Amino acid sequence: MSYSMLELIRTKRDGGDLTADELEWMIAEYTADRIPDYQLSAFLMAVMFRGMTGAELAAWTDAMLHSGDVLDLSGTDQPKIDKHSTGGVGDKISIPLAPLVVACGIAVPMMSGRGLGHTGGTLDKLETIPGFRTRLDPDVFARQLDDIGLVLGGQSETLVPADRRIYALRDASGTVPSVPLISSSIMSKKLAEDLDGLVLDIKIGSGAFMKDVASGNELAQTMVGIGKAHDTPVVGLLTDMDQPLGYEIGNANEMVESIATLRGEGPGDVTELTMRLGEEMLLLGGVARDGADARRQLEAAVTSGAAMDILAKVIEAQGGDPRVLDDPSILPAADRIHMIVADRSGFVERCDALAVGRSAVRLGAGRHAKEDEVDPGVGITLHAKVGDEVAHGTPLAAVRYTTDQQLAACLPVLETAWIMSDEPQQPRPLILGEVR
Amino acid sequence: MSYSMLELIRTKRDGGDLTADELEWMIAEYTADRIPDYQLSAFLMAVMFRGMTGAELAAWTDAMLHSGDVLDLSGTDQPKIDKHSTGGVGDKISIPLAPLVVACGIAVPMMSGRGLGHTGGTLDKLETIPGFRTRLDPDVFARQLDDIGLVLGGQSETLVPADRRIYALRDASGTVPSVPLISSSIMSKKLAEDLDGLVLDIKIGSGAFMKDVASGNELAQTMVGIGKAHDTPVVGLLTDMDQPLGYEIGNANEMVESIATLRGEGPGDVTELTMRLGEEMLLLGGVARDGADARRQLEAAVTSGAAMDILAKVIEAQGGDPRVLDDPSILPAADRIHMIVADRSGFVERCDALAVGRSAVRLGAGRHAKEDEVDPGVGITLHAKVGDEVAHGTPLAAVRYTTDQQLAACLPVLETAWIMSDEPQQPRPLILGEVR
Repeated sequence: MSYSMLELIRTKRDGGDLTADELEWMIAEYTADRIPDYQLSAFLMAVMFRGMTGAELAAWTDAMLHSGDVLDLSGTDQPKIDKHSTGGVGDKISIPLAPLVVACGIAVPMMSGRGLGHTGGTLDKLETIPGFRTRLDPDVFARQLDDIGLVLGGQSETLVPADRRIYALRDASGTVPSVPLISSSIMSKKLAEDLDGLVLDIKIGSGAFMKDVASGNELAQTMVGIGKAHDTPVVGLLTDMDQPLGYEIGNANEMVESIATLRGEGPGDVTELTMRLGEEMLLLGGVARDGADARRQLEAAVTSGAAMDILAKVIEAQGGDPRVLDDPSILPAADRIHMIVADRSGFVERCDALAVGRSAVRLGAGRHAKEDEVDPGVGITLHAKVGDEVAHGTPLAAVRYTTDQQLAACLPVLETAWIMSDEPQQPRPLILGEVR
Repeated sequence: MSYSMLELIRTKRDGGDLTADELEWMIAEYTADRIPDYQLSAFLMAVMFRGMTGAELAAWTDAMLHSGDVLDLSGTDQPKIDKHSTGGVGDKISIPLAPLVVACGIAVPMMSGRGLGHTGGTLDKLETIPGFRTRLDPDVFARQLDDIGLVLGGQSETLVPADRRIYALRDASGTVPSVPLISSSIMSKKLAEDLDGLVLDIKIGSGAFMKDVASGNELAQTMVGIGKAHDTPVVGLLTDMDQPLGYEIGNANEMVESIATLRGEGPGDVTELTMRLGEEMLLLGGVARDGADARRQLEAAVTSGAAMDILAKVIEAQGGDPRVLDDPSILPAADRIHMIVADRSGFVERCDALAVGRSAVRLGAGRHAKEDEVDPGVGITLHAKVGDEVAHGTPLAAVRYTTDQQLAACLPVLETAWIMSDEPQQPRPLILGEVR
């Protein structure tokens, strides 16, 4: 069938629904350069205002998913479960989480992204390991999944090419923050991994894309709905991103904290979130009876060192130096350190994730634009988070930096992160909701 | 100043207002090819949903207006007043109206457009006069206005180039039907004519762009507001376009009816609308004490032949054959005629302007796309309009056609135009409202 793009734009603009055939045609024609950018961007803006029905969204996601290759991981016997986070500051959870659940009998064909803006990216963190490769051929990817049960790769160019093109257009045309468009972008990439289940970590708060629970809920519901339409069970946890996760922000910094977490020595919030997401993955994969059983298995995989062994195998398979797990000093580290100290005593009321994330970008740990390089060795170590009591002159954070210029750019933003109070403070709960 | 187009899109998308500087920058950059189409189309779609404030609209219109030349008609002593119609079926009013008001002391620097879709265009009608030129150099235009007080020209390429480009993008991106975008497109072109006042004929009904009085009112209010912001008084009449104006549809057909109207022999609705619009133009120009005085002057200009003389001078000045005014048989006329007759007796309840307009396009009288040529000699002569009583087998319309194919395409649509009733019917009033 052939359609008129102009008619499809008008239908969406006027609040009508498009058919699966029409949406499939649109994605195929756009990917084949037969629909001009100015028509698709107008359509996407109409979607921002009109939304998409569940049926439209399922068809749109499916059309994106089939715009390129879809992995065939049928050679792997274990249930294939992945986790996706909507992005935050200090969110290194994938790195301890994936080996942990793999040690419990799950296979994780993880394809991660790079950091952009104030949110970090798992790929950038992994690549701080000397020699570690994240670009893997599809057959290497499938073989490693079969051998070890875990791959920590980047997004393949041949998977979901429509999403790459449409995302670039959305980014340039002001049509990014639309729940259906975000959901279909994430879900098409994850469904192309040939999964048996997916756990979503929907971040909520200043450092997240979603600022409140209501909008996080909407996003989670939408993605769970897409999963249902695709016969892939999806569970979403809504989790706090008002302050950074853990104490380390920056690529090597976060790698160090990830390794500590796998050793059982991670910060409370990082460990707890890793365990909660792990429970859901084990349950989705059918390898645990209930949450308590899942938790026991995960804790055993830490204590026994089984999870650490999995990560060592993956690092070795992907060309990295596994000694990093015993000796994190192999990781790059900028050698100049600046301390930020409290200018008053009191209790930390806020440690704003957005301010910390933005200051880390200015330090060189993140990217303003996709083309930017990151500096793997710079980062921020927090010394005081929400609820902590600090005395005047004691450290709030240590900034690891390379150039004076970067430090000077970072500090004015970082210093705004803390708000102090005379009253004792409680951090908000880590888990704010769940959608399944 | 320089701005980020992406930021401006986001601001409009999220319901914020843009400054005059920002809108001016946007139009200038787009016209200079420094903003890509896909960004402007996304912005225009956001405007479709968010609208524009009065201040935004004034700035946007002003920026369009100054994207090219603005006429300098200061050499003309008479008040310069123009009329604009939002377009309809059988709407030939400009042709009798302009010479009439010029005979009463107004100067009319009229720049008309061509027909598109089911609505006709004044230029196409004028060009049925053998030899008549509508492309005029700006200095020829100004000189003729000074000499005769009337120019019947086409839109100059150098006036409001931003509107031409933006309109083409709107047309291709589904962003045409937006009150602020329509208003600014019309008003920028009219204000570039260096006017002292403008009368708008806002058509309402099936054959018009605006289907109901409420939306017509909104459009009229918006354009009157733009006029106020530009210190140019604008009066809008809301007039019926549920059935065609007059009895003639098609280019030469309408020219014949226009000449009859100037001779005092036009149909009631065409004559009445011409007079009402003429009154407003005379009042805006300050050449009549009140409506009754204006009406007397206009009627005298018909009776004395003064208006006809003005049209003769314009036709001669623009290279046309003025004998057409005495002998309309000089005009092109397709020589085959098909009669449509009533298949029952009764009273005409509807004579649908949209069906008549669409069937005229299929006949070759109008254009599907801008590039199409029109056939000047084909057309439809209505024999029965709303309220008329017809007997079974008596004529509803005569169709003048060139090819069997065009007739066969026309008839199935044209025949749907009439709805008959057993009860006597009243046409709805010609004037449905006014905005000033």
